[in-house]
This record gives sequence, C-alpha cells and structure tokens, in this order.
Amino acid sequence: MEKPRLPDTPFWVEPESVDPHRLKLTPDESHHLLHVHRAKPGTPFEAIDGNGILYECVLESVERRAAVGRIVGRREGAGELPRPIEMIVGLPEWRGVEQVVEHAVPLGVTSLDFASCERSVRGALGPQRVARLIRIARAALKQSRRTRLPSITSSRTVQAALGVLGSGERFMADPAGTPFTAGAIGAPQAPIQLAVGPPGGFSDAERRILLDGGFSPISMGPSRLTTETAALALVSVARNSM
Amino acid sequence: MEKPRLPDTPFWVEPESVDPHRLKLTPDESHHLLHVHRAKPGTPFEAIDGNGILYECVLESVERRAAVGRIVGRREGAGELPRPIEMIVGLPEWRGVEQVVEHAVPLGVTSLDFASCERSVRGALGPQRVARLIRIARAALKQSRRTRLPSITSSRTVQAALGVLGSGERFMADPAGTPFTAGAIGAPQAPIQLAVGPPGGFSDAERRILLDGGFSPISMGPSRLTTETAALALVSVARNSM
Repeated sequence: MEKPRLPDTPFWVEPESVDPHRLKLTPDESHHLLHVHRAKPGTPFEAIDGNGILYECVLESVERRAAVGRIVGRREGAGELPRPIEMIVGLPEWRGVEQVVEHAVPLGVTSLDFASCERSVRGALGPQRVARLIRIARAALKQSRRTRLPSITSSRTVQAALGVLGSGERFMADPAGTPFTAGAIGAPQAPIQLAVGPPGGFSDAERRILLDGGFSPISMGPSRLTTETAALALVSVARNSM
Repeated sequence: MEKPRLPDTPFWVEPESVDPHRLKLTPDESHHLLHVHRAKPGTPFEAIDGNGILYECVLESVERRAAVGRIVGRREGAGELPRPIEMIVGLPEWRGVEQVVEHAVPLGVTSLDFASCERSVRGALGPQRVARLIRIARAALKQSRRTRLPSITSSRTVQAALGVLGSGERFMADPAGTPFTAGAIGAPQAPIQLAVGPPGGFSDAERRILLDGGFSPISMGPSRLTTETAALALVSVARNSM
C-alpha cells in the first residue's frame, strides 16, 4: 500500500477552536487531513490560526468529522520577519490587487491597505472584495508557512490610509527618489511602512501628503513599473534589509 | 475638439524597419498611433526595436497605412540597468511562467531560461509557448519604457541551462544560504546570474551542479516562497544592489 504523503503545509484552525492543549480543525481542513492525507490517530500535522504561532499537533480523534489535534509544540513567530511591513498600495485594477496579495503575503507584509487614489479608476473595495482578498491571504499564509495573518483593508483616500497608520519608518516609491539602501533602515523595532502609487502615480497633492507624513522617496530604478511590480519590488528590498 | 492624448509608451518597430534617418512602424502599431492617438504629420512619438535604443521620432508620412517617422534623437540604453541580469527559473506551471515574464521584464532581466528540472511537472516549453512569452515580454518592455528585449528560452535541464551561460556573478535562491548583500556583487561589469528552483525546489543533483558552477546560495527569508515569488524577490534585490 502506498504510504500517504505527510502534509508539508500547515492546516488552518479558527482562533476560537484552539485551547491550551487541543485544537479542532475546520470541516474543510479536517477533510483534507483525514481523506487526502489519510491521517490516522497518531499522525503528526501542523496548524496555524493567524495569530503568529505554529502549532505542532498529533491527530487525537475525530469528532463529528472534525479533526482534533493534541498540541505537542508551539513555535512563536514561525515564518515571520523580525519587523512588521505595513503597506499602502494605490488601488490598481482587480487583477493587480490579487497579484499583490498573492506575492506580498509570502514576502512577509503584515498589512496591506489598497487606498483609492485620485488616479485610481474606482473607489475603495467593498467588504466582499476585501473578504475575497483575506481568503487569498490565508491560502498564501499557509503555503508560505507564515503564521501571522496580515490585515487587509481598502481606504477611501491616501489621507484616510495615513490616518490609521501608527508610527514607523516610511518609504514611498517615487521617480524622484534615491535608491533604497540597507542603511536607510534605522530603529530595529519600528514597523517599516511603504507606499506605492496607483497606475498613473500619486497626484501632486497625495505625494505632498505622504512627504509631509514622513515618507522618504525611493527610486525604483530606470524603468517604469506597474503598481503591482513596484509593490513587490519594494517589499523585496525592504525585507532583505532587515 | 478634445486634444488627442500624446502617447507616453513607445511604439514597437521591427529592427529591419529602422534605417539611419527613418523608421516604419508595424501595421498594428501604426493603427494605434494614427487612430487611437490621432497623430498627424509633425506629431512626436517614441519607438523601440528591442536593441537597446529609444528612438525619438516625428511622424513624417503614412505609406500604405504604415506610419513613417523621422528619427530626431536616439537614447542608447534608455530604461536599462547598468548590468545584465540573466536568470534560470525552474519551470513552474504555466500561470507562474507568465507572471515571472510579466514582472521580471519591467524589473530589468536580460535573459530568462525556464529550465525543466527533475521536479518540474513538465518538459521544456515548446516553440509556441516561448513565442507567446516573447509577445508578453515585448508588451512589458514597452510599458516599462525599457529598450532591450530579453532573451527567453526553455532548456531541457539545469545542466543544459548552465551550458549556454557565459561568465558572471552567480547566486541561487537556497534555504541554506545567507542573505543577499550589496557587497556580494563585485566586478562592476559582469552579468549577474540568478537561479531559482521549480516548485519543490532543485533536486540534490541539480543543486550540486549549480554549486559546482559557482552559484552562491542566497537565503530568501524565513517564509517559503513559490518559484515565481522567489524569482521576483531575487531580481528585485539584485537590481537594487547595482
């Protein structure tokens, strides 16, 4: 008989289904563990609830089709970068939004705010769109073996996006900027906060708001990048400088 | 009457349609210039032929529906990085291949070789697939205002991909590596050569071939990245260190 392949991707568990010693997977995830991976009592697996902990578990029982795991280990911050990366992305078309979530979550962003800008062709994303992005983010979190689910929001304006941001070290993609250098990042604990304009770029007024808010302009090189490519490149260089 | 918006993206011209003083756009591009942008004799536009020069032109005439431009300026290497970036990407599924081309071309890669690896689920891409990728690359080149069309190929094996590579400074994404630092790049003229494994990673034998070929292992951080995300992140940090 072929041996079932052990899962190398953690399973999702809702935070309210985790107690100090046991956790119970969602029905979907239970099905995957029990039927795709053919887990039996005693089979080890991993689970995440999006709060920054990787739970090492052993399958204990199945209660009404839900897999119950005994928690045998906890790894705090597994898969996470040493610092938060918070990002404001000027709202592009929908396909671009999905691509940013798909790639930026594995790269370690801790928050993404798709802000509707003066040059965005549409207003802020509604709750259904945001819910869909959160599902994409959750799948990306599991695949990338991260443990902390990023916040995903969509502000009505750049000013509104800035209003909900705490303090941090701030950088914006800007044709008039200087290249990003590792030395640009100082305080080792503060969040890194990044901003990238929508297709067509930030308006002069938006750019002024960001500069006044302390965002240092960073050049993204000699070619012209789309919003989504610039977002991924900026996260990549920021994470590499930690 | 509304003023036609002047094109801010260069038009494509086949290299054989460029002579020292004039160039003639393809029928598609001519249609775009003449009918979408409603250009008249005297209207300025830019054109690229993929050989590293941005041609500044003025529309001179229309010959059998083809726009003929007088060349009034040439910008050598416009939109190009100071050094070539040559990349071997372990062949992922098709959607991943398209995403790599779509983002890596604006970021400045000069060659992409999608090598079929031991863990790739399919063999090397056929000529029709490669032709489609070249069309995507051409569109990305124009949008990003680069001027040198990257080479796109698909080798049968990692060894074959290495066989056609010239000399350069070599880095591979590898979980056992160290972070990429700007200091890692020495000789200012040599191409930077990057390698990223297919889904599931390079096999031990492939990894050994790359290490023996002088590729330094580079860590891509604490999370697990897909082939396409890793490729974009590695290009991003390499280009930022020039």
